[in-house]
Amino acid sequence: MRTQVVIIGSGPSGLLLGQLLTNAGIDNIILERASKDYVLNRIRAGVLEEGMADMLDEAGVGARMREIGLPHDGFEIAFDERCHRLDLHELTGKRVIIYGQTEVTQDLMDKREATGGVTIYEAANVEPHDFDGDKPYVTYEKDGVTHRIDCDFIAGCDGYHGVSRRSVPEKAIATYERIYPFGWLGIIADVEPVSHELIYANHPRGFALCSMRSMTRIRYYVQVALDEKIEDWSDDRFWDEIRRRLPREQAERMKTAPSIEKSIAPLRSFVAEPLRFGRLFLAGDAGHIVPPTGAKGLNLAASDVRYLFDGLREYYAEGSSAGIDNYSQKALQRVWKAERFSWWMTQTLHRLPEEGAFGQKIQHAELDYLFESVAARTALAENYVGLPY
Amino acid sequence: MRTQVVIIGSGPSGLLLGQLLTNAGIDNIILERASKDYVLNRIRAGVLEEGMADMLDEAGVGARMREIGLPHDGFEIAFDERCHRLDLHELTGKRVIIYGQTEVTQDLMDKREATGGVTIYEAANVEPHDFDGDKPYVTYEKDGVTHRIDCDFIAGCDGYHGVSRRSVPEKAIATYERIYPFGWLGIIADVEPVSHELIYANHPRGFALCSMRSMTRIRYYVQVALDEKIEDWSDDRFWDEIRRRLPREQAERMKTAPSIEKSIAPLRSFVAEPLRFGRLFLAGDAGHIVPPTGAKGLNLAASDVRYLFDGLREYYAEGSSAGIDNYSQKALQRVWKAERFSWWMTQTLHRLPEEGAFGQKIQHAELDYLFESVAARTALAENYVGLPY
Repeated sequence: MRTQVVIIGSGPSGLLLGQLLTNAGIDNIILERASKDYVLNRIRAGVLEEGMADMLDEAGVGARMREIGLPHDGFEIAFDERCHRLDLHELTGKRVIIYGQTEVTQDLMDKREATGGVTIYEAANVEPHDFDGDKPYVTYEKDGVTHRIDCDFIAGCDGYHGVSRRSVPEKAIATYERIYPFGWLGIIADVEPVSHELIYANHPRGFALCSMRSMTRIRYYVQVALDEKIEDWSDDRFWDEIRRRLPREQAERMKTAPSIEKSIAPLRSFVAEPLRFGRLFLAGDAGHIVPPTGAKGLNLAASDVRYLFDGLREYYAEGSSAGIDNYSQKALQRVWKAERFSWWMTQTLHRLPEEGAFGQKIQHAELDYLFESVAARTALAENYVGLPY
Repeated sequence: MRTQVVIIGSGPSGLLLGQLLTNAGIDNIILERASKDYVLNRIRAGVLEEGMADMLDEAGVGARMREIGLPHDGFEIAFDERCHRLDLHELTGKRVIIYGQTEVTQDLMDKREATGGVTIYEAANVEPHDFDGDKPYVTYEKDGVTHRIDCDFIAGCDGYHGVSRRSVPEKAIATYERIYPFGWLGIIADVEPVSHELIYANHPRGFALCSMRSMTRIRYYVQVALDEKIEDWSDDRFWDEIRRRLPREQAERMKTAPSIEKSIAPLRSFVAEPLRFGRLFLAGDAGHIVPPTGAKGLNLAASDVRYLFDGLREYYAEGSSAGIDNYSQKALQRVWKAERFSWWMTQTLHRLPEEGAFGQKIQHAELDYLFESVAARTALAENYVGLPY
């Protein structure tokens, strides 16, 4: 088999890249280790920057997002028993769109099917080869048979645990990491959100986030110690805990419902450098992870795809390799700014025992200052809606 | 003896408070443990916010500052072998004034003498008494004789090591502290500054700062480990080291001269809460310390004096205690914002081994972002020129 670009991974970054390539007449095949249903049922992010939403439009998959996604003009930060609103639209002229990653994936899969794109699900032992030379290829096994796809380029869109980054010799890659000493216990339930916008809460008992997937489905989180066990958290205990971390008004009007998903996730910052190794490119979580506090993970995957697609199109349409040569540097510049922002949001909103009483006071001063300074709010807002590509 | 306000400490906060009180017809006596010459020769800060400069005018001591002080419209941050200018005036409409604390002290001492204010130097064993009741008094020894001054209020302007804060029962006071794992090695020399504005340098070898007292006297610093010994630092070693931490252009045009002062100072963040205990008030370093990175120490002393003087004037002129009742809360709000800013400047510009490679990348992203974002630069600038009183 032969194609122009093999994409490893059918998450949103792989699918979005594939669709943009297909639309531009560039052949591509997506290899996915898991089943279609498994991919579709992974629960992930749900806050899209305008830049990403525009890319979905550009790829021809934005219709449902524009119809049922919820444009949010702002969000709230709760501290000191009060909610303080941050008006993203007033500060930046932009907004974000609440639309679950699951929906994005569904839309991209539907479009791929409609436009005849090839995705091979349940491809086992996917392996990129010879990407340091001119003739890379990818092997995989399916139904006991080993297959080989020759290609021009390989796009590693297979997440943090994927094979793409692991295929690169250790010496060729530098990694930067921060593990946070706490996790997020998150639930999903079908009930009206406590507010029509997100609420980020800084509370002596720990961080909490009231997010949503729609006006009938909530996605709430509370900061927990890393050794907490999910079986110790009944729904009741969760609802009690999140209410204690919110101002009274919000706690009292919070509606509850049985959880339909409940899990604990660690928080991590991670960056691999570079993001290009000859004819192999890393994009999205394969190259970097952010803690979820700034809602940047999915959006960073989209900006990687922006730079990578532009580079590949330039290569095929104009015979110039300038775009792919610049890919790693360009993507990493934006990645690091989002890493910084996500780290800052995390540091500012969570209880950090290792920072002591002084650190808590600094957090508090930061939040006080934020809501007195247009400049500080603008800096937060411009990062939250997404820095320019 | 009797007066209305006893001020402990004749540094700039004590002298400024004394002058404002004297001008308002409120009797005051300053008690100073050291000699006049000792106080005058202490080398300290040198960057005044406009708010402080205006207070010096208000106190009638601004003439020499306005004549020989250097208004600075901006400063530079050096990283990645380049200087990046931060235009304070363009971003905020304000500037800072370079004028040494020694000069401020001299001007205030001259004025105090001219207006008949009483300062008792070399007052030993100063001790505030009964400030939790209605009839406080202060005792001290001079030439072997113990004296007592009865008063309405006591202003503790005697610095971090002074007796005022130590006189408060431990139970009544909360303290917050951060010790930084490095110090500043600073020198003074009579030579033309490398630039007409300050340069803050973030460099792999550590932080450096090129400051000045005038266009013929430099005040330069380099970050050093806490266990460095001053006797290991010849002038030549200092000049070599600071040049290595600057971009080539600045390093090459830096002029040197024999140091006339050289010392190593630790960096510390410290806040005591509250700042009022009955009829005793803490102001300036007696209540809080900032690391020098944001040039906020002297300016915070001035804002404390602003609130305290306004409160005392209100008390004597209008018989209202609202101002002194609010003093602690009002002063601390501004103190904590300056603590946050000084902590942030320190974190962002120094080499922090405990933060690891990830932390260095975050620093770098922060600086990159700063010079791409007007909002981020404005936030820095509005803190640097001083938040409103």
